[in-house]
Amino acid sequence: MMYSDIPSAQTLVLHFKSRGIRNIVISPGSRNAPLTVGFTKHPFFKCFSIVDERCAAFFALGMAQQLQEPVAVVCTSGSALLNYYPAVAEAFYSDIPLIVVSADRPSYRIDIGDGQTIRQENVLEKHVGYSANLKQDVSHASAAVSKLGGERSKENQEDIQAYNEEAIQRALQTALLEKSPVHINIPFEEPLYGTVSEPTIAIPADKQRVELEGVQMDWDRLASVWKASKRKMVLVGVNQPNAIEKEVLETLANDGNTLVFTETTSNLHHPDFFPSIDSIIAPIEKSTDRETLFQDLQPDLLVTFGGLIVSKKIKAFLRKYQPKTHWHVDPKKAFDTFFCLSEHLKVDPNTFFKEILSDESAPSTYKTKWLKIKECYEEKRQAYLNQIPFTDFSVFDEVLRGIPKGYQVHLANSSTIRYTQLFPMHPSLKVFCNRGTSGIDGSTSTAVGASIFSEEPTLLITGDLSFFYDSNALWNAHIRPDFRIILINNSGGGIFRILPGNEDTDEFSTFFETHHGHTAEHLAKMYGFSYQKVDDGEQLKNGLTNFYDASDSPKILEVATPRLLNDKILLGYFDFIS
Amino acid sequence: MMYSDIPSAQTLVLHFKSRGIRNIVISPGSRNAPLTVGFTKHPFFKCFSIVDERCAAFFALGMAQQLQEPVAVVCTSGSALLNYYPAVAEAFYSDIPLIVVSADRPSYRIDIGDGQTIRQENVLEKHVGYSANLKQDVSHASAAVSKLGGERSKENQEDIQAYNEEAIQRALQTALLEKSPVHINIPFEEPLYGTVSEPTIAIPADKQRVELEGVQMDWDRLASVWKASKRKMVLVGVNQPNAIEKEVLETLANDGNTLVFTETTSNLHHPDFFPSIDSIIAPIEKSTDRETLFQDLQPDLLVTFGGLIVSKKIKAFLRKYQPKTHWHVDPKKAFDTFFCLSEHLKVDPNTFFKEILSDESAPSTYKTKWLKIKECYEEKRQAYLNQIPFTDFSVFDEVLRGIPKGYQVHLANSSTIRYTQLFPMHPSLKVFCNRGTSGIDGSTSTAVGASIFSEEPTLLITGDLSFFYDSNALWNAHIRPDFRIILINNSGGGIFRILPGNEDTDEFSTFFETHHGHTAEHLAKMYGFSYQKVDDGEQLKNGLTNFYDASDSPKILEVATPRLLNDKILLGYFDFIS
Repeated sequence: MMYSDIPSAQTLVLHFKSRGIRNIVISPGSRNAPLTVGFTKHPFFKCFSIVDERCAAFFALGMAQQLQEPVAVVCTSGSALLNYYPAVAEAFYSDIPLIVVSADRPSYRIDIGDGQTIRQENVLEKHVGYSANLKQDVSHASAAVSKLGGERSKENQEDIQAYNEEAIQRALQTALLEKSPVHINIPFEEPLYGTVSEPTIAIPADKQRVELEGVQMDWDRLASVWKASKRKMVLVGVNQPNAIEKEVLETLANDGNTLVFTETTSNLHHPDFFPSIDSIIAPIEKSTDRETLFQDLQPDLLVTFGGLIVSKKIKAFLRKYQPKTHWHVDPKKAFDTFFCLSEHLKVDPNTFFKEILSDESAPSTYKTKWLKIKECYEEKRQAYLNQIPFTDFSVFDEVLRGIPKGYQVHLANSSTIRYTQLFPMHPSLKVFCNRGTSGIDGSTSTAVGASIFSEEPTLLITGDLSFFYDSNALWNAHIRPDFRIILINNSGGGIFRILPGNEDTDEFSTFFETHHGHTAEHLAKMYGFSYQKVDDGEQLKNGLTNFYDASDSPKILEVATPRLLNDKILLGYFDFIS
Repeated sequence: MMYSDIPSAQTLVLHFKSRGIRNIVISPGSRNAPLTVGFTKHPFFKCFSIVDERCAAFFALGMAQQLQEPVAVVCTSGSALLNYYPAVAEAFYSDIPLIVVSADRPSYRIDIGDGQTIRQENVLEKHVGYSANLKQDVSHASAAVSKLGGERSKENQEDIQAYNEEAIQRALQTALLEKSPVHINIPFEEPLYGTVSEPTIAIPADKQRVELEGVQMDWDRLASVWKASKRKMVLVGVNQPNAIEKEVLETLANDGNTLVFTETTSNLHHPDFFPSIDSIIAPIEKSTDRETLFQDLQPDLLVTFGGLIVSKKIKAFLRKYQPKTHWHVDPKKAFDTFFCLSEHLKVDPNTFFKEILSDESAPSTYKTKWLKIKECYEEKRQAYLNQIPFTDFSVFDEVLRGIPKGYQVHLANSSTIRYTQLFPMHPSLKVFCNRGTSGIDGSTSTAVGASIFSEEPTLLITGDLSFFYDSNALWNAHIRPDFRIILINNSGGGIFRILPGNEDTDEFSTFFETHHGHTAEHLAKMYGFSYQKVDDGEQLKNGLTNFYDASDSPKILEVATPRLLNDKILLGYFDFIS
């Protein structure tokens, strides 16, 4: 073992160890050397090296998402830190405890013309749970510093040490308890490379980890509202696989007055749930009788849990046809997504439903009617699939049906997640998507990070813009040979073609669709992936045959789809089922 | 012509036109459709489409750096904006007027669970000159909005229009006058795609453009200090080519008491200037007589102008051996780089020197002594080059001597700029490097942007980490066939090997050096560059022979250097000349 001789660096490393924060993603640099030395020379930590900080942060986020524990990223001073920001915002809205540690210069060196120096303190503050701005150790300051730092703090080292410990503890506590990203900025004076074999500071025994306070719930009142509501809708956003107990799901499914609307990212399955929300709502939107139909669907009581909702249609519907009561069930936070939030119930959904659910009741017409409609569009979807040409729509059907059981599946944003929502997913699949900010900027890196410690193999399904955007995700020495990517390449942002601005002009294809002719072939070669490209249904079927077999290197299957046809077939689906 | 039917979008587009801001780099999205339509459908604007916002912003920065006028980037809502941040920080410290325009959702849609929604207002505020947070137009708000927006502002449309115009004007004024990056955040309510053929708003005739106030200077006092100082040093940081008048340079060079220290990025040349600062200072550092030698070099009066200084050695020297007086000459800002700034003289350097310089004086020993030392290390450098093996050091010598006259040359950060500083550059070359934050994150994109309107062809010299970091820079439909890249690939961050932390361990090569085995071959194929790889001196000579000839496609010349030898040869150089 070896430690930096800088007290604040030791303090940070020892606190991470004491809190069990083990996984550290490091980007190269000199200013962060005291941390790099501290983490890499201590056997407790598992360190990963990634050059591009944007990818590094999404990689760490993917890991934290799976481990459900904090993962840290460590970078040098300057713009390096800013490259973390897209992943930090995603972590903030997805409640993932990403710990950002940025090395900095001492404050008297900011804005005086030193290289790799920006205003790092609090620079991420809009999207982190806590910003810890550590102070420069006095004991480490050289004579030169004393000469220069006319403004230097008169604090003594004991006070600085106490301040830094408190700040580090608050940051780690926030990450651990609130599952928020946090930022720790730590200034270092040169020399940066000094080491000692034993720590020169001792950190106090770890304070008792405080749990979030349990909130006293008025279960009687809530249960009676639940019971009295004859039209209930449960809508589930992003939700970890296996988070909800089987027994709860069963009872919920058997409640005769309750429609359970799930999304692909909900990871919840039951034959009586409603998993393809847009297939229910789009036909209503197109109906001449839509007012009546929407009123038929409007719940009295809406219960939501989980993270962000993908379906724009359900959001538009519930904003217009608001329920009398909307409860959001989550220990941490509640968004007023439909502008009618009645109460934020700060409990775990399992606890909530166990308290609230009574014996099963006979299905009401509210339930039977929509179950019949569901059955109907499921049949029509199959009929539609039997008659359409090879396009994004048919490819998603084929691809999703072909995923081996038990896989971890990561979906890129935009087209990928929206198409996937239209099809059933096997209940054994564990599905993830960066829905916190819904960006196209880090899906591949997230999937790679999520795969590292996964018991199951990982599949990423992605569109072309998202894939090329995050191409540096493949510049990673830790990609497992069982990692799989299916790239559905429609030569641009095909989803823009279904928007009302669609036109057949150069401006449209350049600035909205962003038409291009690239494939993943060269990147696959560069980064040691096996690669196969298919561009019709037969080839796709063949391509999938051995795709998931064990292999020495990871694989990319690229599916080229006809860019000018995809949008028509997608819009045609909603007409067909209407 | 066609305009969005949203008043704030029209207002923004019309103000840009009225201020002559013509170049717009757009990333794809739906929320920014009102702006994309407005800019792309108006013949005044020249629009560029780039998907990865990190590259888009550096590309725009390169363009603005060359045009010396504002260039705008336009993105959709959400994390897209955060990807601009590295380039924004670079623009902030390099005084480049990058205008960031981010489409946003109306404020009542923030933090309620909508997709692609973050806290955009003021999110870049630490590194921009001004953040304009525009308001949502009332007239465009739909009935649905009224229903939902319980909190909605009671302002009427006239007040909002006035507010938005004022905010846009302040932002553009800041960009134009202070050369600062600025951020304009503009919320749009759906529908986003409505258009009109004539603007529905009229913007007032442009207000008189106010110039920065001239500052009254006490020239007599300054001239007498200058005259009285017998040991003067002029140190020049990043400086636009041809910014300093020939006559001023001549007079300055002929001042017998003045040493002019320049850097590669100064773009200043004269036989009597000192262009390789580290070759002067490193031998002193190594000398047993260093105290005396440093005192011999210490100036009474230090005059600096231009942007940030690359050489760490000159900074360390001047911080320890401070001048009695330090003036920084710049109309906008002054950093106290050496902790002894006496005065910020807010004038243009040409004006300053014309006022201050008197007739030439006979060279003092302060000057003749150091000119002799310069001559001496120049001879020794040649002798050293004649005896060393093929390494980074010899490659930089060969490459820099081979650049055709008049080229625009972009240097990546870290190794590339530091090696280049050790060699002379032909005075006709125009040299640029992102020294604002000295990041490795956007050098290629910046060079591509800078080449777009350049009369001369552009060469980028880059190291491997910087090149692969910004590989998406090549995903750009606007790269000119005369664009050239010389990639000096030492298989990792070779510069870390010269740092004191250098060790022959796995931790070192993984986490500091970040050793890898990639080449640019596959990226070159993917993005249509001709590609050649060389790995010895003979091949390099041959490779350079036709490299600059006219061609149908841009070219990459990759030079593989021996990673374990480079640092020894570099350190050996400083020993050899000592």
